[in-house]
Order: sequence, then C-alpha cells, then structure tokens
Amino acid sequence: MKTQTKVDGNDLILIRHIAASPEAIWDALTDAEKLKQWFVPKPWTITEAVIEPRPGGRFLTKMVGPNGENEDCGPSEGCVLEADAPSRIVWTDALSGGYRPNETPFMTAIMTMEADGNGTLYTARALHRTPEDRQKHEEMGFAEGWGTVAEQLAAMVER
Amino acid sequence: MKTQTKVDGNDLILIRHIAASPEAIWDALTDAEKLKQWFVPKPWTITEAVIEPRPGGRFLTKMVGPNGENEDCGPSEGCVLEADAPSRIVWTDALSGGYRPNETPFMTAIMTMEADGNGTLYTARALHRTPEDRQKHEEMGFAEGWGTVAEQLAAMVER
Repeated sequence: MKTQTKVDGNDLILIRHIAASPEAIWDALTDAEKLKQWFVPKPWTITEAVIEPRPGGRFLTKMVGPNGENEDCGPSEGCVLEADAPSRIVWTDALSGGYRPNETPFMTAIMTMEADGNGTLYTARALHRTPEDRQKHEEMGFAEGWGTVAEQLAAMVER
Repeated sequence: MKTQTKVDGNDLILIRHIAASPEAIWDALTDAEKLKQWFVPKPWTITEAVIEPRPGGRFLTKMVGPNGENEDCGPSEGCVLEADAPSRIVWTDALSGGYRPNETPFMTAIMTMEADGNGTLYTARALHRTPEDRQKHEEMGFAEGWGTVAEQLAAMVER
C-alpha cells in the first residue's frame, strides 16, 4: 500500500509517493481541466472547476454523484491562501475568493510536493477546528476518499 | 471631518488621511505594544495582543471594557493572510493562526497605506459574507468604532 494516512492532533494527513515530478502534480492541482479528472472519487464527477493559484484566488468545484446527487446545488467555493509552485498550495473553505468569509468553515487543506528519489512525496493535510470536526471527517471517509483521489492523481500523472 | 466611511456591496470602508508615513502606520499596526495603544476605542483597553505579520501568522487581541467587560473571556484569534510592508495587511476572523478554521467567521479586514501628499491615505475595508452581516456591523457601530480607532491611530503616529 503506497498511501499512508495518520492523525496529528486535529489534523488528518495523507502521504503518498508518486512517480512523477512535483511540477506534474502541481499542474494536476492547478489546471482546472486536469483537476476535474481526479479530484473526486469516481463515479462522482466534477462538472465545474475554477482554481486561481494565488493568494485570495477562488477554488471552486461542483461535485455531482452518479445518480445526479448535488446536481441542483451550487458549486462550493473556497479560497487559495498560498501558492508556491511547484511545492505548496494552501486553500480553505472558511473563505471564498477575495478572502470573503464563508458560512460554515470546516477545513483548510495544505498540499505539499517534495522531490523524493525518482518522484514526489505528496502530502495532503486537512486542518480542523476541533477534535470533533476531525473525527467527523474521519467518519465521512477521509482515508478512503482522499486515498482514492490520490490514487486517481497518481494514475493520471504517472502515465 | 477627516474620516469618511462608505458602503460597497457587502463591505464597509473607512478612509482617512493621516499625516505620517506608511511605514509609521505599518509599525503601529504590526508592533503588538503599539497596536494595544490605539486598536480599541477608549476607555476599552487591549490587555493582550499578538500580531505575526506574515501569511498564516496569528492576530490575537483581548479587549476589556472599563467595567471589566470581557475580562473572563479568552482573547479572540484571527489569522494574517497577506503582509506587504508598508502598504497592505489582510487578516480574517474566519481562521486562527496557521490557517485553522474558526467557529463563527464574521469578517476579513484589508488595511492599505498609500503615500498621499505629505502623509498617507489609510483605508480599512471590512468584508462580510452577506448584506445582513454588513448591516449588523453597521448597527454595531462600525463608523463610530473604526472612526474612533483611526482617530487614535492618527493621534499616535502624527505626534
């Protein structure tokens, strides 16, 4: 198993070695058309995506289920906080683009890409406000969901 | 009257010419001991302040009333999002230091300092999620509170 997940205080962490460059992973994270191909576990799909990789930029996705789940909902919008190509991107659902507050903050995500042998050590950290939020995220299937997504990312960039 | 306030969509804005350099205002905003002297309308006081002027840094203040109001409360902690000395600082109460989500996001503040004749055009913009939040902030006394605070800032840096 190439993917590890662990708990660190209120945070959940996923780590995976991917046999592709940090630049290729950065590209998959910050090019909206590429992001749509891997950022939700199949058979869910992303029907709309915007990612502006700069502080204050929008990070918007609309995820739709195989039976039309969420089809009538608006996209959910977060905000990019840091974007240091190709090694680190930070975004949060506590804010929308331009740093405007959102209604129900749940997490901030920090993705880092470090050169690692012939590939990249990809780390995704989800920061929560409380142990309860962290536990809720675990119960929502963090390890499986983010694991599947990392698998899809690897399959895309390693080919 | 040197201070203007206005509404822009969901935002509230305060503008004031201050007869001091952008650097002096930056310093008053980012040095915790200085911040404590002006950042709450007197006779309230700030008994504790931390400001880390870098993306992800903490912005923490504990404001206490003249009759001990809030004395038993913890300080409130926000997060610095941008810090470009001496011209722009952005922070939000939607996050704590290190970008961890907070419980009840209300606003993001953007302060800019632009050279203006023999002084600085100081602009403070409060971004809200909804028109209702903006109106609530107006009713809480944005114009008077932020106006008094800008007056206190000017009195400190102009002397």
